[in-house]
Amino acid sequence: MQKPSLPKGTRDFLPKVAAKRKYIIQCIEESFISFGFKPIETPAMENLSTLTGNYGEEGDKLLFKVLNNGDFLSKVKLEILPTSNELLPQIAEKGLRYDLTVPFARFVVQNRNEITFPFRRYQIQPVWRADRPQKGRYREFYQCDADIIGTDSLLSEYELICLYSMVFEKLNIQDYIVKVNNRKILEGVAEVANCKDQFKELTIAIDKLDKIGIEGVEKELLANGFNENSIKIIKQSIRTFEFSEEGLAQIEQIIGTSPIGLEGLDEMKEIISLFNTSKPNIKIELDLKLARGLDYYTGCIFEAVPTSIKMGSISGGGRYDSLTEIFGLKGVSGVGISFGLDRIYDLMDELDLFKKSNSQGTQILFCPMDKNAIPTLIEILNEHRLAGIPSEIYPKADKLKKQLDYANKNEVHFCAIMGSQELENKEITLKNMHSGEQQSVKLEDLLILMHESI
Amino acid sequence: MQKPSLPKGTRDFLPKVAAKRKYIIQCIEESFISFGFKPIETPAMENLSTLTGNYGEEGDKLLFKVLNNGDFLSKVKLEILPTSNELLPQIAEKGLRYDLTVPFARFVVQNRNEITFPFRRYQIQPVWRADRPQKGRYREFYQCDADIIGTDSLLSEYELICLYSMVFEKLNIQDYIVKVNNRKILEGVAEVANCKDQFKELTIAIDKLDKIGIEGVEKELLANGFNENSIKIIKQSIRTFEFSEEGLAQIEQIIGTSPIGLEGLDEMKEIISLFNTSKPNIKIELDLKLARGLDYYTGCIFEAVPTSIKMGSISGGGRYDSLTEIFGLKGVSGVGISFGLDRIYDLMDELDLFKKSNSQGTQILFCPMDKNAIPTLIEILNEHRLAGIPSEIYPKADKLKKQLDYANKNEVHFCAIMGSQELENKEITLKNMHSGEQQSVKLEDLLILMHESI
Repeated sequence: MQKPSLPKGTRDFLPKVAAKRKYIIQCIEESFISFGFKPIETPAMENLSTLTGNYGEEGDKLLFKVLNNGDFLSKVKLEILPTSNELLPQIAEKGLRYDLTVPFARFVVQNRNEITFPFRRYQIQPVWRADRPQKGRYREFYQCDADIIGTDSLLSEYELICLYSMVFEKLNIQDYIVKVNNRKILEGVAEVANCKDQFKELTIAIDKLDKIGIEGVEKELLANGFNENSIKIIKQSIRTFEFSEEGLAQIEQIIGTSPIGLEGLDEMKEIISLFNTSKPNIKIELDLKLARGLDYYTGCIFEAVPTSIKMGSISGGGRYDSLTEIFGLKGVSGVGISFGLDRIYDLMDELDLFKKSNSQGTQILFCPMDKNAIPTLIEILNEHRLAGIPSEIYPKADKLKKQLDYANKNEVHFCAIMGSQELENKEITLKNMHSGEQQSVKLEDLLILMHESI
Repeated sequence: MQKPSLPKGTRDFLPKVAAKRKYIIQCIEESFISFGFKPIETPAMENLSTLTGNYGEEGDKLLFKVLNNGDFLSKVKLEILPTSNELLPQIAEKGLRYDLTVPFARFVVQNRNEITFPFRRYQIQPVWRADRPQKGRYREFYQCDADIIGTDSLLSEYELICLYSMVFEKLNIQDYIVKVNNRKILEGVAEVANCKDQFKELTIAIDKLDKIGIEGVEKELLANGFNENSIKIIKQSIRTFEFSEEGLAQIEQIIGTSPIGLEGLDEMKEIISLFNTSKPNIKIELDLKLARGLDYYTGCIFEAVPTSIKMGSISGGGRYDSLTEIFGLKGVSGVGISFGLDRIYDLMDELDLFKKSNSQGTQILFCPMDKNAIPTLIEILNEHRLAGIPSEIYPKADKLKKQLDYANKNEVHFCAIMGSQELENKEITLKNMHSGEQQSVKLEDLLILMHESI
């Protein structure tokens, strides 16, 4: 006999939580579809050759590797036990996907002849990372991604920011801000600060700002050999600006001498002009502190951050120009965002944003108080189900208390009770489990009444 | 540069297929909810100690094992290379789930204090098996399960068979038959055939009937030491009967001397009596050839099989009395069914049962013929999206042919074209991509018109 347990960092979802998660996914998916995104799916397992090398050295370590099937050592031509690193490539060819972006790039290249560009895809699937589990960080979690690939039009950036507005409005999330930056503007900062060669180290350090503070960033830059003058300019530059022409003008004063920086500003200007035309109800700021850790971003980057409680971003994304290049397809620019289901769940849970109806289940429980009532009850039960009303029958003529208790624990709205008396009178006792009210209803009137009540 | 590819037996799903798969899942999920089933989710990875030993020796071999993270050999205290079987338990603790039933049993035991019994759960998630890939058999595929656990009431069996009717009606699948049997009746057959000790071998052999024919079954039974008299009785018994009192009477003539067999007949009688009360539109037969391979079934078993094309079952299930016992919880009887998404997809595809609307995506594409039209178009675009009409804008003022081509390839219903002339006149040229018709529409009338048209 085994004592049941789960692998570290993984979770079961009980009905109430699972239903709320489904509700979040449904809101996100409806928004994606409104915006013309089309669904795709990729397998959980990818070849390790597809995954490895795209997430940095740290990321590679966090990949879950799947052992080759069968006698996995049969081809290993060694007599003594090698090291893990030596053995790994010989016994594991597959891994679990780490995100949805790299599999998507692989997908685009592999299926390019069947895809019409610009291609707007969405994908809602779990990903796996062997991160150290901690509050809010799990080893299996869902990503909800929308990408537009095959166009460099900045309309796409505009649309993705608008998408935030629709998703969060559906979810009733009001207190959030969208932070926008552009990798080219950051490159401009690096250029004027004379540390363009260390741009990667710069973004990695800035990305940690929230966690380690400005002193921490300074320390890390110093350790990486940045000189004090560079650091001074960087510290002066990385702050927030208004998402407006005025904000851009202020940034231009800092990085105006950098060609790449000016390019980034031009892009931002075009995006801002689109918002001047049609602006959804959304707070946006230009945040030069926003770096986004991932290597592959090349243009505009953004994230959505809750403002009423301290929490990291609930969505992030950006433009990438060369992601499909690793799989041999050049010149395909894309831009995408990813919503983190688990973070959004935690936020909504903490702010009590779920309505009762978000986990609406069974509306009516038929309660037989007499075995002879069962045939009549299942007839009515079938009618209700056909009419689309989630319904159950308690499977035995148990004591009423037990049946009502079951209804309460499952948050059932109505109980329809039938004993021998009701059976004879062709009626049912309908109990509203919310109000406690109880009434006698003719059998033929029940379905209409239920339609009106829920 | 890597040449992109996928692990053997796994698949990408392009938008048209992915949308149809989502449609099937939606129909199944709606039916589950109508029947009062509540969603749960379990992680993709389970401890191998949970999975191993529940699927037979063959099943254990088909489990995908996940390598321990980090320096997985660090704890291996061996100098020479061991065999795969020796090394495996030292380097892999986790595996990918093989089905949803064993994880569900683990879930029930682990969360038993938070569950109200009888517990009606549904679960729609992928499972993984390292089977040899072939037509219709994949290494990652979806199962859609509904189970009622914690009651031995035969109402549950009745409900699950009714569930077939709702699911397949929603999916427009008409030509199928539900086959029903009971393990106890099969045990009765084994008893009267004097081979009760080899019941497991008997069910395994019968389960292969479709694949290897009656001669194959006979051969396998002979090889397993069944005597000729046993085989004669078995061959006479395992055939189909009417799902009625008459059918039961015929079976009773065969197994009437077996107590366990009579118990099975009594159960079947009660189920049939429920159908006499309220019978959904569904063909049912009593099929003593139905064995269902899995060990854990103890009572009623059933499956749904298409009748218009040759294909295995598209759904199957049954009652299990001791599944949670392996995790230490006794006396919890359950019954469940599982729909195979991939099989149902293949069936619907082959019978051309998908309607065009099953993969409904973008309804209207806004086509800018002039860069200056873009601001106006995104205003109208946002209105349409807010109104819930899936809409896109072509991201550049490219040639009309290119934009219409994009619309056609994406099966967009309408194109709303705006050049400088339309911009000036505050109107739009609306082209119905199905009929080819084209009309000029005032901007303020477009949304109403679209609401009426789709």
